[in-house]
Amino acid sequence: MRDITPLVAPRSIAVIGASTNPNKSGGVLFDNLVKGNFQGTLYPINPNAAEVMGKKAYPSVAAVPEKVDLVYIVLPRQYVEDAVKQCAAAGARAACIITAGFSEASPEGQGDQARLRQIARDTGLLLAGPNTIGLVNADCGMMGSFVNFPQWERGGVSFFTQTGIFTGAVMLHVMTSSTQRLPVSKSIDVGNKVDVDELDFLNYIAGDPATKAIGLYIESIGNPRAFFEKAADVRRSKPIVILKPGRTREGATASASHTGSLASDDALIDGALRQYGIARAEDEDEFLNALRALALLPKPKGRRVGIATTSGALGVISTDLVIEEGLELASFAPETLVKMRKILPDWLAPANPYDFWIGIDVKGPREAHEIGLNAIFADPNVDLVLCTLLAPANADFAEFGALLRRLRQTYDKPVAVCIYGGSAGRRWVVDLEGANVPAFATTRAAVRALSLMVQATL
Amino acid sequence: MRDITPLVAPRSIAVIGASTNPNKSGGVLFDNLVKGNFQGTLYPINPNAAEVMGKKAYPSVAAVPEKVDLVYIVLPRQYVEDAVKQCAAAGARAACIITAGFSEASPEGQGDQARLRQIARDTGLLLAGPNTIGLVNADCGMMGSFVNFPQWERGGVSFFTQTGIFTGAVMLHVMTSSTQRLPVSKSIDVGNKVDVDELDFLNYIAGDPATKAIGLYIESIGNPRAFFEKAADVRRSKPIVILKPGRTREGATASASHTGSLASDDALIDGALRQYGIARAEDEDEFLNALRALALLPKPKGRRVGIATTSGALGVISTDLVIEEGLELASFAPETLVKMRKILPDWLAPANPYDFWIGIDVKGPREAHEIGLNAIFADPNVDLVLCTLLAPANADFAEFGALLRRLRQTYDKPVAVCIYGGSAGRRWVVDLEGANVPAFATTRAAVRALSLMVQATL
Repeated sequence: MRDITPLVAPRSIAVIGASTNPNKSGGVLFDNLVKGNFQGTLYPINPNAAEVMGKKAYPSVAAVPEKVDLVYIVLPRQYVEDAVKQCAAAGARAACIITAGFSEASPEGQGDQARLRQIARDTGLLLAGPNTIGLVNADCGMMGSFVNFPQWERGGVSFFTQTGIFTGAVMLHVMTSSTQRLPVSKSIDVGNKVDVDELDFLNYIAGDPATKAIGLYIESIGNPRAFFEKAADVRRSKPIVILKPGRTREGATASASHTGSLASDDALIDGALRQYGIARAEDEDEFLNALRALALLPKPKGRRVGIATTSGALGVISTDLVIEEGLELASFAPETLVKMRKILPDWLAPANPYDFWIGIDVKGPREAHEIGLNAIFADPNVDLVLCTLLAPANADFAEFGALLRRLRQTYDKPVAVCIYGGSAGRRWVVDLEGANVPAFATTRAAVRALSLMVQATL
Repeated sequence: MRDITPLVAPRSIAVIGASTNPNKSGGVLFDNLVKGNFQGTLYPINPNAAEVMGKKAYPSVAAVPEKVDLVYIVLPRQYVEDAVKQCAAAGARAACIITAGFSEASPEGQGDQARLRQIARDTGLLLAGPNTIGLVNADCGMMGSFVNFPQWERGGVSFFTQTGIFTGAVMLHVMTSSTQRLPVSKSIDVGNKVDVDELDFLNYIAGDPATKAIGLYIESIGNPRAFFEKAADVRRSKPIVILKPGRTREGATASASHTGSLASDDALIDGALRQYGIARAEDEDEFLNALRALALLPKPKGRRVGIATTSGALGVISTDLVIEEGLELASFAPETLVKMRKILPDWLAPANPYDFWIGIDVKGPREAHEIGLNAIFADPNVDLVLCTLLAPANADFAEFGALLRRLRQTYDKPVAVCIYGGSAGRRWVVDLEGANVPAFATTRAAVRALSLMVQATL
């Protein structure tokens, strides 16, 4: 077992190809490191400049006055191998190759990549990439990516990815949202995964106090036996969600073109994931949704769902989804039913899903939601709370955010919220900011997040 | 076969319970009719007012100087039956009971509803409801709902629903969005479905020139044999998407509480839907997405998908989804591959999914997208185009919207777009407004929309 700390949490970083042009990849990446307030020392490597973005430049890694922890390599393909050799010779501990065009590209590129791997094996240099968008560690201010992020929500999710998208455009999308941003600690994109792999990452992240939940986007598993053994151990304290496409033959072929990954027997992988309690997401959206739920919510005590709704149709739709996901409908306790009846007319008996729309007519929106939602949260038979709520003007009330905040704190149960309804509905979601209550765009997204959460923790 | 025109497209409307208070349900509904510029005559029925919102009020339906086509009944439950009898006696052709508390509520309510049904049968009065949010016909300005809509996108989708949500909060949500609003012609919510049913609706809508695609949210099918026969006929010119929850035992139970629907054998229903080419959505989001696709796009000629992507990961993820949905990956024609190579480096061979991210480095974002997307749209083997695109700053270009508009017009093929990436990505979606190009929030949503579209049309 080796320690990848120099790669994930370096004390010093050099960037080969740090351009003075902030529009080139090497310029963007260096600019990101500077503006991200990296907590260690930065060394731009550029033989044609005295300094880059205010930092003294060096002609080579060997010329840097210390043995650096991590070197980013942002060079045309033909110069990469020599740069890696220079890193090893200079005593650098890790290198991250941003450049593409290796095993994902051609037989020649596969040969080139094999040689890079051999250098890593021979020298002990920790190698990430090639074909990666970079490495992020919000805890030490390492924004080592060639994508510019206007803001970054710090928090408990750490990623290991075999593709750039979750450090790139999808994260840009998530982070520029005004609400429900994903709280991220680290995002380690190893691209073609020439050396440092998911097992190294699990070994590191197991001891990382900042990480609460783990997201893996991988297209291959190098050593399945060791991986599953380690994952089974890690997931007891830090739940794991995996997005591994290539479930179909065609998907596996596409995966080979993307990262040069060899097809594996998906049924075997899928069985092992179930056996070891690693949740498997099927697309990018539920991958991020499950991680958001895991980062914001406590571990569920069981799989019994209480559905609070103000829409009969959404109640029925979500019931189907809950059952199809292998979750259960909670049987409400007698005292819960007593509370629930308080906001219903005599002729209406509460059930699960608990549809209290009519309670809004009976008691007004504030009291109906306070009594209705409190009844569900308080029920001892409810492990997970699902709220599918409508917010047209006549259901609106100013204290929605405060109510959910109070219920979340009082009962400390996992909850997923889905809200429909024009401007009031959008305000309700805004009012949940900072309340550790994940909101989802659809009932399916909410139910899948709860389901993946259960798979990852129970 | 009876004609429900008086209910769906009335020339005159009376509202029993039209309140002068614009915050009460009867006041909101009447206000909506007035502000929606209903194209016929409006008669508020209110014995305690001389006029309501500028319209002369009448003490009873019988006092109105003509036999009205449609009467809305917005009264407490105990007054409803008498009001329905008054409508029939006054020669009204149709009535819509907004009031709740009937078969969905209690045994007593079931008895009340059975008597309402009997009145309809005895008198020939067309009856919608009870327990409905109302009826909308954008073509004649009938906004007969007690939900207020700030805007309404007119277009080719017509709904028949056994619940209020798709005329209520979900539609409010959709219609207050700044982009990708669903274009709607009619929305007929019959609530508990005491009389007018899905078969009546299909008979009417088959001859409605404004309707291009049909959405049915139903919790029961009254006469399955007749329904499927008619649906098989109608779907040849107007594709049908159905959302019928109650797939699980628990869902069916919830459905009984919601609209008093009896459980049916879901496997039989599901088999018939497949056999007759009616697409079945599983949740509210894909229901609306499929209808948006059907309203905006031409009928597909086959099930072969060409995937254009600038994300290897999204390419692999969407490939799995495409195959799992029973769609196929197109084999690109030789001339397409020649075009595709123009924006790739020599070492990279194009495939499906066609990932041309590197083309952005090679040719710049505008030329890469123009050549890359044009190649896919033009390919004779591509029936459906799926674009999963990234829009970080370095992939952005001003002409994205114009490009998609041109490709959509030139090739007239079904296309679904999913865009990730901060502010540029959001601008791309805005720039698609009016281009008849549906954009979806996730790859799964895009693929499901194409799949349901194929199920509804091929």
